[in-house]
Amino acid sequence: MNEFELIQQLLPGLPTGPSVVVGAGDDCAVVDAGIPGQRLLFKTDAVVEGIHFTKETDPHRVGRKALARCLSDIAAMGGTPLAAVVTLALPGSYSPETVCRIYDGLGALAAQHQVAIVGGETTTNPDRLLLSVALIGLVPAGKELRRSGARVGDALFVTGDLGGSLQGKHLDFEPRLAEARWLRDRFHIHAMIDLSDGLAGDVRHLMRASGVGVELLAEAIPVSRAARLAAATPGGKTPLLAALTEGEDFELLFAVPAAEAVTLKDAWKEAFPKTRISCIGKCIEPVVLRMREHGRMRQLHEEGYTHFKVP
Amino acid sequence: MNEFELIQQLLPGLPTGPSVVVGAGDDCAVVDAGIPGQRLLFKTDAVVEGIHFTKETDPHRVGRKALARCLSDIAAMGGTPLAAVVTLALPGSYSPETVCRIYDGLGALAAQHQVAIVGGETTTNPDRLLLSVALIGLVPAGKELRRSGARVGDALFVTGDLGGSLQGKHLDFEPRLAEARWLRDRFHIHAMIDLSDGLAGDVRHLMRASGVGVELLAEAIPVSRAARLAAATPGGKTPLLAALTEGEDFELLFAVPAAEAVTLKDAWKEAFPKTRISCIGKCIEPVVLRMREHGRMRQLHEEGYTHFKVP
Repeated sequence: MNEFELIQQLLPGLPTGPSVVVGAGDDCAVVDAGIPGQRLLFKTDAVVEGIHFTKETDPHRVGRKALARCLSDIAAMGGTPLAAVVTLALPGSYSPETVCRIYDGLGALAAQHQVAIVGGETTTNPDRLLLSVALIGLVPAGKELRRSGARVGDALFVTGDLGGSLQGKHLDFEPRLAEARWLRDRFHIHAMIDLSDGLAGDVRHLMRASGVGVELLAEAIPVSRAARLAAATPGGKTPLLAALTEGEDFELLFAVPAAEAVTLKDAWKEAFPKTRISCIGKCIEPVVLRMREHGRMRQLHEEGYTHFKVP
Repeated sequence: MNEFELIQQLLPGLPTGPSVVVGAGDDCAVVDAGIPGQRLLFKTDAVVEGIHFTKETDPHRVGRKALARCLSDIAAMGGTPLAAVVTLALPGSYSPETVCRIYDGLGALAAQHQVAIVGGETTTNPDRLLLSVALIGLVPAGKELRRSGARVGDALFVTGDLGGSLQGKHLDFEPRLAEARWLRDRFHIHAMIDLSDGLAGDVRHLMRASGVGVELLAEAIPVSRAARLAAATPGGKTPLLAALTEGEDFELLFAVPAAEAVTLKDAWKEAFPKTRISCIGKCIEPVVLRMREHGRMRQLHEEGYTHFKVP
């Protein structure tokens, strides 16, 4: 059993309430808090030293990444972020300068997206720095983009390039907030998820939530330059494997009616000329994940990143 | 410089926005999210193995405590909790049973207070368990109880008993949600804060936010039975020192016009006969913290709990 299966097993037993539109299990929770025409998005996430960054990572980029991950989840729901609270858990040995730089990085990205930082707690984590961020946001009622709406026949798209994120992108990526809202307002986006665990992992989350299968086209998967370069080093993964499994891409994966695919691609190129968009496959009837590669079809066994497996 | 001074220094520089009614620095943030007649409360907090509980603590109580601390902050604003999201950071060696028991404890308390658990993330913290909770709640607009409204001449009250919380109460305390709303609706509560760092620490937070001094009456400070018992052991703190400095009491400290003090005390006894309420002092003009003890006045130098001091 891995972490996802464990949490998947726990969540249905948790208390819910009449205000909950989407509970645990999507990129964000969706809550009806009584805002006319709007729903509240709610998300938390954490970055941990030695896991999501190293002791040597510039603290400015650590703070930035902690918030950017949550922003990416708000993006994946088609929402607009509003306010964040932060918990900084750190060894007593951390210098005030480090703490200030973490907050500088966090604050700069927050300002860029008009997110207010409305709470800052500190506590002790004796062995390593851990930074937890919780974020609220807004989305027009009924317009939230869930993981669960993909239908058989839908075209599957992904933004940007995948793989090799550890070379630097995982710290400096731009959450696709504007892109997601643009898509939400112009097309019938049936389902959306942000890629954090790697395409091979996250596409399964979308499949499970939607109850559909997926057929990927290997040649269409956009591989990053970083992944191609890494592949050339001794013992490097193939670029395709990197794109499927490395994770932390923070791009958007979404399903849209096949009939809208060409229009979407053309309009995207006008709106976001610097960011690639790729149709990487389609949703199919049998609930399996398969990939067409060099003209042959195979079941996809590659998995995304998991933090741990439990016995 | 301690953690509070460091954060105090950082927070004014953080991005804010037009929707922020109360930013970082109070028990919760208060956000105007467009809910007619209501404001949104927003809070995050974390508990860490070895700091807030031990490796031997029943995981059920760990989960309960993590949520209870946030609920206590919602109480201190006079609010009603709505929904929570959770991040569980844990070593790979944790058993699924442990994780389930943590969520059981959390879920049971959530159900008791009609809080929906709408998100559950897991991540790795290789050396120890860390549980971070973020909570949203509601409060009628303009009725939020801040730390900053205490006025010279106000009577200072505290609920329950103080000190000795580590004997067990820190895991099993009941957040004073009903009590705080009862106070909010019946009296002119000028300021309120929950006691997490210890009376000597938290009263200073209230003083600084309100710009007033405080005079405490030592004999009026309600000392818990646990603190009295601990004092009888060799090397034990005096009960009063325990009540002032040990922290994790999760009781309410509040300021109310002196003219309402007697009425409040009488009505409280009717409404909450099982919970003590004590008038422990008053707000004074010079911004100092002093205590009358055995008929003599002294400056109070005792401090509440701080996680760390930085150079």
